Amino acid sequence: VPTVGIIGGGQLARMTAPAAIALGVRLRVLAADPDDSAAQVVVDAPVGDYRDAAAVTAFAQGCDVVTFDHEHVPMPLLEDLVAGGAVVRPRPQALRLAQDKAAMRACLTSLDVPCPRWATVRDKAELAGFAAEAGWPVVLKTPRGGYDGKGVLVAENPDDAAAWLARAGQPGGTGLLLAEERVAFEQELAVLIARSPSGQAAAWPVVQTVQVDGICREVTAPAPGLDPGLAAEATRIGLRIAGELDVVGVLAVEMFQTAAGPDGAPGDAGGRVLVNELAMRPHNSGHWGMDGAVTAQFEQHLRAVLDYPLGETSLTAPAVAMANVLGGRSSADGGSAMGIDERVHHLFAADPGAKVHLYGKQVRPGRKIGHVTVLGEDMTSVRARASAAARWLRDGVGE
Amino acid sequence: VPTVGIIGGGQLARMTAPAAIALGVRLRVLAADPDDSAAQVVVDAPVGDYRDAAAVTAFAQGCDVVTFDHEHVPMPLLEDLVAGGAVVRPRPQALRLAQDKAAMRACLTSLDVPCPRWATVRDKAELAGFAAEAGWPVVLKTPRGGYDGKGVLVAENPDDAAAWLARAGQPGGTGLLLAEERVAFEQELAVLIARSPSGQAAAWPVVQTVQVDGICREVTAPAPGLDPGLAAEATRIGLRIAGELDVVGVLAVEMFQTAAGPDGAPGDAGGRVLVNELAMRPHNSGHWGMDGAVTAQFEQHLRAVLDYPLGETSLTAPAVAMANVLGGRSSADGGSAMGIDERVHHLFAADPGAKVHLYGKQVRPGRKIGHVTVLGEDMTSVRARASAAARWLRDGVGE
Repeated sequence: VPTVGIIGGGQLARMTAPAAIALGVRLRVLAADPDDSAAQVVVDAPVGDYRDAAAVTAFAQGCDVVTFDHEHVPMPLLEDLVAGGAVVRPRPQALRLAQDKAAMRACLTSLDVPCPRWATVRDKAELAGFAAEAGWPVVLKTPRGGYDGKGVLVAENPDDAAAWLARAGQPGGTGLLLAEERVAFEQELAVLIARSPSGQAAAWPVVQTVQVDGICREVTAPAPGLDPGLAAEATRIGLRIAGELDVVGVLAVEMFQTAAGPDGAPGDAGGRVLVNELAMRPHNSGHWGMDGAVTAQFEQHLRAVLDYPLGETSLTAPAVAMANVLGGRSSADGGSAMGIDERVHHLFAADPGAKVHLYGKQVRPGRKIGHVTVLGEDMTSVRARASAAARWLRDGVGE
Repeated sequence: VPTVGIIGGGQLARMTAPAAIALGVRLRVLAADPDDSAAQVVVDAPVGDYRDAAAVTAFAQGCDVVTFDHEHVPMPLLEDLVAGGAVVRPRPQALRLAQDKAAMRACLTSLDVPCPRWATVRDKAELAGFAAEAGWPVVLKTPRGGYDGKGVLVAENPDDAAAWLARAGQPGGTGLLLAEERVAFEQELAVLIARSPSGQAAAWPVVQTVQVDGICREVTAPAPGLDPGLAAEATRIGLRIAGELDVVGVLAVEMFQTAAGPDGAPGDAGGRVLVNELAMRPHNSGHWGMDGAVTAQFEQHLRAVLDYPLGETSLTAPAVAMANVLGGRSSADGGSAMGIDERVHHLFAADPGAKVHLYGKQVRPGRKIGHVTVLGEDMTSVRARASAAARWLRDGVGE
């Protein structure tokens, strides 16, 4: 029986545990804290710092393959791990592009993958130069470490960016920022791909994601009303990136769907699908598959990193909606005094078909503490139910 | 967050772990051995003897509710546990009927629930008396401790039963055996019910079970070709038993469907559905629901014993088939030398849609070591696929 090690003890590692239990695969998690989401439910969960070479090396011993709950492990450490004989999937050369958004943009552009206009900028003059071409506002991103809207600034003018540019230029700073055109999109899409070391790849149906303040709030599968040609193009782009970058495991490609260009053709010069972000691990945009796909992303990630043949990715219902549960206000701050257990009771009474997934995390306002999935025949209905369920769990009250 | 304690560390407790992870419920398992199926995957799994009052009492402390992976915990111990303030679900008065088949028959008969003809017998004369009415062969059962065909003897004549009767009559023996008419059935059915302390009950669709040598081999949901009136009658019987016995948690009622009586009406004097066995816990006949029902029996059992509102029980596909994976012959005995991991590889290559559930158990010929579920549109097809998948995992070869 193989042992899969996951560096990082967050909810992605936690949700991998049921898949490992079913497959009879041993799971090992390197947690930052014994109370981490995954450490609560995984028997073999040593605590250690993912930036500490000794801790990571010790962790990797006894693992048949090492993979990730997050992309923050320092690159030199991963390279040493591989040099020492560990099997690391995805391999560091690929993971580098998920760690560094500027490197990712350069790589995708070299592959002619459609992206928003972008440049790296070090000061106001470079930023102004980029904006002269791409227009204001400009989306500024720190190349490393951002998540859930953190590390992203929408700058309306050069002054908005002053503090970020100064911070980047300080000793220990990233030196540069990534500047991107703000895309006027019709909707946001995500393509999830799994790829194995032997090169087999499987794609789930393209989904729509709805973000609020940079945080994913809802995912609907399949993306409602998406033109089949555009869905095929998005899938082709995802498969191409997975192959060219030699990704192993789950790859999430977040995309903007823009209005058609002048001639209206998908993939025309104006672009219809532009790649926004990449993640080389299970991703929030794939949580719906735990209930709504024949093979969930967590099982598929295990299959991929173990080089098992990949599983079927079709939907188990015509319409699947996932809504994230964010932490609500505390009772001291005007929020409900109802505990999470009582909220679950109320929700189950209101909607016996809602599938609840909680992450065992302390509630903090805006923090992702779980998600809810609803399956059905009609997207409008399942989306409303998923959204109402997530609101119940957040606020402790219905509509 | 509530803590649910399960006495027993077998595959039923193991398969409850994913449901507890999703619901954010703490799980505690009393395992007989640190290598038990559930102890491999549950963080809080103390080792202790379920027959030892001190071990069970210590285990129950810190549990909000105590429930079961098996029905073998001694009744006086459970009664003391309840007297000491523990919340035990199902309660001992109900569980007694799952422990003692003779008590179960007497209770069901007092409720006018249709059963095969039965009697308790202590010697050859009593057995012969019963057979004079019910005919040979007679099905003899030890009232306690049987499972998977163990504890069941089909006696063609009084001499066949001699050794069993002698053993029952010895000091420490059960004193008596349960004699039952051998029913000429059309098919075997199972009705699964979940019931909560507040009296809410939910039934899954009636399923067909296929047993070979007393061991469940396949389950198909819904039971193919079952008359809707008969399905409703079977469900009514299941719900009535759950209510009358005040069962809390999952109740599995195994039934024989017999040929119609002279007037052909369901439920007529000749009987169309006869109750065979009861289990008051998740049951093999409900494993299909992990992939094939909106709410699986393991989640539902947690919801029931915690008095959460119960979940939707509908199918997620028109046809669902589950096949048990039994341990095959060892390579020393002419079986395949292929390990389980390699068998899984082959199976996934052959059928990317097969859902595999392994129990982490050592392979012994005939032992249940996992199951496979397949969903689809057509029962003949999914049943063939599930059966072929289970054969692959058992024998390491295809057809």
